[in-house]
Amino acid sequence: MSKTNPGNFFEDFFVGQLIRHATPRTVTTGDVALYTALYGTRFAVQSSDALAWGLGYDQAPVDDLLVFHIVFGKTVPEISLNAVANLGYAGGRFLAPVYPGDTLSAVSEVIGKKENSNGKTGVVYVRSTGYKADGTEVLDYVRWVMVNKRDPQSPAPEALVPELPAVIDPMALGNAVPMLETEYWDNDLAGSPYRFADYAKGEKIDHVDGMTVEDAEHMMATRLYQNTAKVHFNQYTEGKGRFGTRLIYGGHVISLARSLSFNGLGSAFHIAGINGGRHVAPLFAGDTVFAWSEVLDTAEIEGRPDIGALRLRLVATKNRPCADFPLKDDVGNYAENVILDFDYWAILPK
Amino acid sequence: MSKTNPGNFFEDFFVGQLIRHATPRTVTTGDVALYTALYGTRFAVQSSDALAWGLGYDQAPVDDLLVFHIVFGKTVPEISLNAVANLGYAGGRFLAPVYPGDTLSAVSEVIGKKENSNGKTGVVYVRSTGYKADGTEVLDYVRWVMVNKRDPQSPAPEALVPELPAVIDPMALGNAVPMLETEYWDNDLAGSPYRFADYAKGEKIDHVDGMTVEDAEHMMATRLYQNTAKVHFNQYTEGKGRFGTRLIYGGHVISLARSLSFNGLGSAFHIAGINGGRHVAPLFAGDTVFAWSEVLDTAEIEGRPDIGALRLRLVATKNRPCADFPLKDDVGNYAENVILDFDYWAILPK
Amino acid sequence: MSKTNPGNFFEDFFVGQLIRHATPRTVTTGDVALYTALYGTRFAVQSSDALAWGLGYDQAPVDDLLVFHIVFGKTVPEISLNAVANLGYAGGRFLAPVYPGDTLSAVSEVIGKKENSNGKTGVVYVRSTGYKADGTEVLDYVRWVMVNKRDPQSPAPEALVPELPAVIDPMALGNAVPMLETEYWDNDLAGSPYRFADYAKGEKIDHVDGMTVEDAEHMMATRLYQNTAKVHFNQYTEGKGRFGTRLIYGGHVISLARSLSFNGLGSAFHIAGINGGRHVAPLFAGDTVFAWSEVLDTAEIEGRPDIGALRLRLVATKNRPCADFPLKDDVGNYAENVILDFDYWAILPK
Repeated sequence: MSKTNPGNFFEDFFVGQLIRHATPRTVTTGDVALYTALYGTRFAVQSSDALAWGLGYDQAPVDDLLVFHIVFGKTVPEISLNAVANLGYAGGRFLAPVYPGDTLSAVSEVIGKKENSNGKTGVVYVRSTGYKADGTEVLDYVRWVMVNKRDPQSPAPEALVPELPAVIDPMALGNAVPMLETEYWDNDLAGSPYRFADYAKGEKIDHVDGMTVEDAEHMMATRLYQNTAKVHFNQYTEGKGRFGTRLIYGGHVISLARSLSFNGLGSAFHIAGINGGRHVAPLFAGDTVFAWSEVLDTAEIEGRPDIGALRLRLVATKNRPCADFPLKDDVGNYAENVILDFDYWAILPK
Repeated sequence: MSKTNPGNFFEDFFVGQLIRHATPRTVTTGDVALYTALYGTRFAVQSSDALAWGLGYDQAPVDDLLVFHIVFGKTVPEISLNAVANLGYAGGRFLAPVYPGDTLSAVSEVIGKKENSNGKTGVVYVRSTGYKADGTEVLDYVRWVMVNKRDPQSPAPEALVPELPAVIDPMALGNAVPMLETEYWDNDLAGSPYRFADYAKGEKIDHVDGMTVEDAEHMMATRLYQNTAKVHFNQYTEGKGRFGTRLIYGGHVISLARSLSFNGLGSAFHIAGINGGRHVAPLFAGDTVFAWSEVLDTAEIEGRPDIGALRLRLVATKNRPCADFPLKDDVGNYAENVILDFDYWAILPK
Repeated sequence: MSKTNPGNFFEDFFVGQLIRHATPRTVTTGDVALYTALYGTRFAVQSSDALAWGLGYDQAPVDDLLVFHIVFGKTVPEISLNAVANLGYAGGRFLAPVYPGDTLSAVSEVIGKKENSNGKTGVVYVRSTGYKADGTEVLDYVRWVMVNKRDPQSPAPEALVPELPAVIDPMALGNAVPMLETEYWDNDLAGSPYRFADYAKGEKIDHVDGMTVEDAEHMMATRLYQNTAKVHFNQYTEGKGRFGTRLIYGGHVISLARSLSFNGLGSAFHIAGINGGRHVAPLFAGDTVFAWSEVLDTAEIEGRPDIGALRLRLVATKNRPCADFPLKDDVGNYAENVILDFDYWAILPK
């Protein structure tokens, strides 16, 4: 019997199952530097210990998406090694600031399961939680993946599709942000004259700039997250596959788009919640990513006079500038070259 | 009105204008590791805490050019986002050692402005200063850039071209170097048997080795510096442009040439001043960089029996080995494949 | 006379010669992050401070191969700058844990020398030792390289070929591992249900996954190790050479194969000794690396009830999956596409 991990198939999951994932990971300033080198992120709170400390943090917190990718990466060997597709995200909450030196681990709970009508695959819903060595929860989110059945003849289990929130209640946001001394917020250093009150529902922002992705970059990123999904790394196999080339980790696209969004959303310094997300089309090396945002909603957070929340749709495209805010066509299909439709809550200072 | 940064045009600058740049940046050992991975630098003082501490530093200081690139990167959104060309540097001084943990910010002052005769562009001169969170100045330098006018019809301002030093006075050098315990300087560990007294004015050194550059490398470097100049990142746009490919950040070339110069200048551990610099021709991914140096001058520094200064011309080429020290042709034009002509003061132990 | 390093030729080495290598190097969490990004290593002890501390380490130790590459890199300018081939390794021992903040230096002793029959080259044997700033030895190993003679006419020296151990005595293993509190070893977090007793002599494990290598990646890795061997970096010269392309540092292959081996050997957390190693064929950018392992032996370590040692053969291939465990053909030549045959002792918890 082989000692290698074959990954789990649809039949291996059961609702209520708890999975403790491997390889706890101490996050360091080395990871932060690599994250900066990979995406060019410029949000001031995550970039400067001095500025973060002045506002009320212990030091510069680790970028929210770096935390997300690390926690996500841990779940791959058990959840999505045999996944056909990563279908969606919901109910993501960032619960505590993560600092260099913190060690992150992940557990997942299977919360739903439904066989597809073709009998060959099924959808598995899991809630994954990232926590520090002292037990502090830093992130939880739900994702659902399409997984191959080991045996197409195996009987379909009773379908259980969890009810998922369409949007995180604003009351639940902001736990990862200490009460800010906003009198020390400095628009010049933050790179934006606009704060919470300057954004209005319905506003659209073209982030203008484009970023081309190389194979070396997305592979280094994905390995940094200890994400082992095979399709990102193996040209020998992928070259013979559907696309003829390695597929870029969807989270890499989210981070690129988020980084591009600094141009127009410079004070939206924190991702507090992930309402939903869909990887609409694949990205490959050589493609250039563009992004635009729409303010879907604005919200006050009770007990937080220092900050407010914007619900943002972040759309990424490949090889298509976003001056015309591409999203869907007349019949509701995603427009050509749209690759990401991501719905999240950002925190801004008042 | 768009919330994205359109950058400044020629009309937006006025002499005396002070610009506080965004995104203060805590430099870490992560940045240092990336700098090493990108350039392979081997200068011992910056590589070893133990060695640096023995000589009189608190710990290994951050490479001077990493400091330069980070400060430079901060100035891009306001100074050179619409720049047509980065024309030159002068008067650069490294004023204090920077250690991992220090947070760097940048301010710029506009010190000159002159419209070009075509009426479409002008030259803007700025002095940029990098400083730590406690206010310590670590670097200042002047650069001048050619910037587009927003409106070719707008009247030309009164021309003011600042007087710039052709060379930094040696008396002003060495502030970033503590008084060294040179009895602990170890030629073997430093990788060179040659010290200050071993170099003579007029000496030329071919640094022999060549280094090929990949797109992933220069983009990671440029993002590490949070430099957002568009031409480095966007193949979609640049593919349709003048060169058909992304342009490599000029500072990347300086760092490559400086790193190659270790072979022959291993004890020239510190860049104390930048007298001038010119990016003679562009570099693209796939090109191989070579370098050679000429000792333009040697100087004692008053009050510093421990160190001396070499004024060095550092020349980089692409796809052309430097055994014949290529620089200019008979009529004074730069020789083919010369890409950098950089004039700086290096500090060496006595 | 040029101040650049011409490297040593066969005539420059003499048995008993001690060489102190340049550029001591403080290892940091930045280096660790890059190592993770380059190879995707997932061994838990090296990844988590909290887990390592719970087991008995001060914090997460630096990956053994990162230590090896840094020490190896220091030896290149004096030992192998003019090497025609890196012929083999033997007698490698990891002697103390290395933590971020430790400064590594290297010395080499020439222990053997033998001219080749062609009169143009010779083989030089060196034992290199890596040590910390306080003198603690962390690693020693023997390697032998084929080096060009400066002058084919120079007389052959008396041949001295050192006697090298075929395998490190298990008694000598484990010095870099503190006595472990194995009751805190957690199979889930370690990513493997198998411990020392679960492996048997003769067992073969296909590590399944493949990893494609890009030029940017292997050059960043090799520069991170401050390894200056010319063939890895200079496409201008290598493009005209035997292979037409840059050659990937052999150590990069070892690290890739070791990282792939996590899938099947997740609890083999430490390389305690290198019995031998041979780079059978070169690797180039674009190639995909696969790996398999064979348990050559199992060994108890006297005085260590906590851990045991597996002697492992780690074989890497390029562009060839390893389900059939490729090694040698019928007449004893290495099979096509085998690139590495590496023999080491790994430590596992009991």
